[in-house]
Amino acid sequence: MAIINPSSNYGTVAIVGVGLIGASLGLALKKAGVVNEVLGVGRSAPNLDQALKIGAIDAVVDLAKAAQQADVIVLCMPVAQMRAAFEAIEPHLEPRTMITDAGSTKGDVILAAKEVLGKKACQFVPAHPIAGGAQHGASAAKADLFEGKQTILCPLQENSPQDIDLIEGFWQSAGSVVKKISCVQHDAIYAAVSHLPHLLSYALMASVVNSEDADQKLSHVGAGFKDFTRIAASSPEMWRDICLGNRTAVLKELDQYLLIVNHMRKLIAENDGSGLEKLFNKASKARQDLDGL
Amino acid sequence: MAIINPSSNYGTVAIVGVGLIGASLGLALKKAGVVNEVLGVGRSAPNLDQALKIGAIDAVVDLAKAAQQADVIVLCMPVAQMRAAFEAIEPHLEPRTMITDAGSTKGDVILAAKEVLGKKACQFVPAHPIAGGAQHGASAAKADLFEGKQTILCPLQENSPQDIDLIEGFWQSAGSVVKKISCVQHDAIYAAVSHLPHLLSYALMASVVNSEDADQKLSHVGAGFKDFTRIAASSPEMWRDICLGNRTAVLKELDQYLLIVNHMRKLIAENDGSGLEKLFNKASKARQDLDGL
Repeated sequence: MAIINPSSNYGTVAIVGVGLIGASLGLALKKAGVVNEVLGVGRSAPNLDQALKIGAIDAVVDLAKAAQQADVIVLCMPVAQMRAAFEAIEPHLEPRTMITDAGSTKGDVILAAKEVLGKKACQFVPAHPIAGGAQHGASAAKADLFEGKQTILCPLQENSPQDIDLIEGFWQSAGSVVKKISCVQHDAIYAAVSHLPHLLSYALMASVVNSEDADQKLSHVGAGFKDFTRIAASSPEMWRDICLGNRTAVLKELDQYLLIVNHMRKLIAENDGSGLEKLFNKASKARQDLDGL
Repeated sequence: MAIINPSSNYGTVAIVGVGLIGASLGLALKKAGVVNEVLGVGRSAPNLDQALKIGAIDAVVDLAKAAQQADVIVLCMPVAQMRAAFEAIEPHLEPRTMITDAGSTKGDVILAAKEVLGKKACQFVPAHPIAGGAQHGASAAKADLFEGKQTILCPLQENSPQDIDLIEGFWQSAGSVVKKISCVQHDAIYAAVSHLPHLLSYALMASVVNSEDADQKLSHVGAGFKDFTRIAASSPEMWRDICLGNRTAVLKELDQYLLIVNHMRKLIAENDGSGLEKLFNKASKARQDLDGL
């Protein structure tokens, strides 16, 4: 195992799941010159080939090999598969090997890590890079995907300050701005600003497609509808896992949202224009402020 | 009153409400060279001044004068104000003067027109230009706002074929592509693809802003949240009127939507991954097809 210097080199990095995030991370780390070798682990041979072709990874290995050879293992697959990954890694995990991840939910991944890794959970520093796009796969990867974007770190009590610093430096090397918050805060915030909007956007598309005059409706959509439903083009598998992985927080945010929607429904049914305008005003002002930020 | 030749000149046009739509219409008609004079009617003196300044209108008049002098009157104010406009226009309406509108809802406007104008309702050819933007007011107006965009015409049984042709030519002159559908169809379609998304987008902003950790949440929003809520920056007054004006269709679409959302809620609560993925898949496929159109 290579000696790790947090400011300059992370040795051998294994990226597990070389989709948009994983392959972009490989490109970013190599562009930054902070790795000796990038190993790729994945389910899809064509995608691994693509990652090799664009230079996001240097070699394809299995998870056991990755655990044995890597200095840093990064889990970039859908969050529901992370428990199985921890199980495959655990028997081969070297004491100085660090693990981080790119999962959009943190509570469920941390629970899996603690249950599977036991005492070795101190080697896992959970992360969530806020980057992505409508396109999937290594073919959509780009070296600057993380540039200037936030990566949320949710360190465990078990992590040593040195290990947290190392993983912070690792994500900074990929171009991102690191912010540390608790996993509970993380899951509540992203349930509200990301997971719930995806759910609601999928629901509108499903509702329109299920209606009798679906074709008529779809032929009349404008820019507003397209903006609102853009995130409904996202990976169904990934968002299924996120909604289930962050179930408690998503349901809480959804129920708060449904209170507002049902209140609006009542205002419309009762023809209460001033009540409706008051709510719309508050929302409109907040949205305008958001663009002003 | 000038003689109207549908293919070339609409004489004196009165635009009632010189906001983004009204002022852009004035600019478009003048650019196309199909009007002798554009009269402006409005509530806001600064906005009327602005419309004069950019040349969207040539003179400011009141509604009675507009009704007396114009060959074509175009109602471009929020739909809830249209009944009062018909009332002000009716006593002064010349037999050959045509009325059209730019309202986002049609059933309520048509009902108001029939109740107020009586037999003169045959002079009203309802329209809905599908154009707009996040910005309001004459200062945001542009001559090409309607260029290549659809204008939906919902002719009344009372309209003569000649009058329908005239108003079709009128909206075409402004640059738009005219499509004719019934007002019931129009209201159902736009409830689903425009009015409901606005309501849901306002609701999400209101829900986030109402939450205890609103500032934290708002500091973590990304591109997806911004896309989803972009339409929540729209005019609260206008959308209040639209939601109330198209109440029946909006509530129907909302209830269909809530069925899907509550079904998704149940799938999440019961950890039913395959059911959730099936729904997400259907939605994702439909949204991707939309971009392929």
